Amino acid sequence: MALSEFRLIQRFFAHTGASRTDVKLGVGDDCAVLSLPAGKELVVSIDTLVEGVHFFENSDPERLGHKSLAVNLSDLAAMGAEPAWATLALTLPAVDEDWLEAFCRGFSRLAAAHNVQLIGGDTTSGPLNISIQVHGFVTAGAALRRDGAQLGDLIYVTGRLGDAGLALRTVGNVAVPAAVQSRLDLPTPRLQEGRALVGLAHAAIDISDGLISDLGHICDASGVGATLYVEKLPCSQVVRDYIHANNDWSLPLSAGDDYELCITIPPEKLAEAERLAADFECGLTPIGRIEASAGIRCLTADGQAVQLSASGYEHFSS
Amino acid sequence: MALSEFRLIQRFFAHTGASRTDVKLGVGDDCAVLSLPAGKELVVSIDTLVEGVHFFENSDPERLGHKSLAVNLSDLAAMGAEPAWATLALTLPAVDEDWLEAFCRGFSRLAAAHNVQLIGGDTTSGPLNISIQVHGFVTAGAALRRDGAQLGDLIYVTGRLGDAGLALRTVGNVAVPAAVQSRLDLPTPRLQEGRALVGLAHAAIDISDGLISDLGHICDASGVGATLYVEKLPCSQVVRDYIHANNDWSLPLSAGDDYELCITIPPEKLAEAERLAADFECGLTPIGRIEASAGIRCLTADGQAVQLSASGYEHFSS
Repeated sequence: MALSEFRLIQRFFAHTGASRTDVKLGVGDDCAVLSLPAGKELVVSIDTLVEGVHFFENSDPERLGHKSLAVNLSDLAAMGAEPAWATLALTLPAVDEDWLEAFCRGFSRLAAAHNVQLIGGDTTSGPLNISIQVHGFVTAGAALRRDGAQLGDLIYVTGRLGDAGLALRTVGNVAVPAAVQSRLDLPTPRLQEGRALVGLAHAAIDISDGLISDLGHICDASGVGATLYVEKLPCSQVVRDYIHANNDWSLPLSAGDDYELCITIPPEKLAEAERLAADFECGLTPIGRIEASAGIRCLTADGQAVQLSASGYEHFSS
Repeated sequence: MALSEFRLIQRFFAHTGASRTDVKLGVGDDCAVLSLPAGKELVVSIDTLVEGVHFFENSDPERLGHKSLAVNLSDLAAMGAEPAWATLALTLPAVDEDWLEAFCRGFSRLAAAHNVQLIGGDTTSGPLNISIQVHGFVTAGAALRRDGAQLGDLIYVTGRLGDAGLALRTVGNVAVPAAVQSRLDLPTPRLQEGRALVGLAHAAIDISDGLISDLGHICDASGVGATLYVEKLPCSQVVRDYIHANNDWSLPLSAGDDYELCITIPPEKLAEAERLAADFECGLTPIGRIEASAGIRCLTADGQAVQLSASGYEHFSS
């Protein structure tokens, strides 16, 4: 016998993630009731993952549970926010208890690791669709934004770029190392790094659609342009091998799905940025500079412009 | 040429609903940033509407925009909360600008009427799926809940029951009055009524799945049972006609989709409840009583038990 919607939510999601004292009422009523710390602003983001668009059919549900939450937490990271709560709107073609348990396990493990509690949700029948909203806090007025980049700012990225794109481009290729595949399936939201950058970065965004596309959003919102130096882009050895074998910089520049942070830092804070870079386990690498001239220029060390065949992935693009 | 995802969100949703000063950063960054009034708790709910499950294919998009938001605001009403912000995760099979404009119009009109601002969202491609999260405030500790019903409480409902069910059961029947059809397509969230009931009601829920099912949630959460007197159920004339013609009470008892509030009120507050009932334009009608004995009994005036063929609608029920 299939479970009713109500029992489905209760059973799988009533105790998911951390258990927080600021949750006055969690899963099981019409709404959740939450207490916000004094002096903080609320930071929220909602993102949807659709089967066949954002992930393959028959994707491993535990990895999917992790990734669905991770891509949302990455948005909180890009604001420098402390994560707190999540809601989950899950549309499922059928009730598969094994699938649900595995999804919940992946979701809950990542949630607990970042002190996030699942506070509510909705479970409906239909084509597989996962919408998650995350909620966090920032000190009032301190959120990192897209529109704060200034002329002369140095552009940095956390971690490495291109691994997720490589895994995506070579689906099912056993030669792709497990560590590279995990960068696509199990992205790490850079929450600790985002919070450390509050007060230092002028602007920040997470790289979901590709560096060019997402840095482009910073440039558009801030009314500036940028130059990137492609040899400075932090990449794993397999991505470097791919670039050199194919003379193609698209993996780190436009493949997306890495969920690293791209930030701009004023040059007078270079020393502070370098100290942070040494502290960040994932690294923090300078890759270019904010300039007045609109658009994003990608140059090699000898000053040649890099040609790109495609910009970041966008839904509905013609 | 199709619009890119980014411009889609910006163009249609950047200025939807009210414009609120507590929105520090709205649509267009990785997250929205929001300021909560001192002394208030945050109240949130997320709900999904799926084509073919919650609404028919080719539904009028303007009415769908209204209804998608209304069913979510109804959850805030059931908590006695003041509405403030909404996010929208919209999965669309294709970009249809006329459809989007109409959807946005229906959504925005209702949002503005309740001082709700759209603060963020995500637009993706896939089978039509609408997830909306609403956010509101309650004075700390004052939220109406499901688990507060007590022995002897009087059970009340706002408005009338069964119209939406009648419209659903007689799809395309031109004999259904427009006012009844609107009760299905354009439900009115009882926000003002819910707020007026704070401090008076012991428990509250909104009737989405049907009175028996939703009152059942109050009873389960509160560890009580209930008796309802079916002739007291507030119904429109067409619903009364249907009941008597078919000797079938299922429309007001289990059809759902009315989005009225069901609340329990202690008997010592009867006079206060009657004063409110006179104030509510939609009405507030006593229909039964909370009792110790588990389960919900539906009785006629002469003490006969009413038999029901089905309880409220639940997804995935076998």
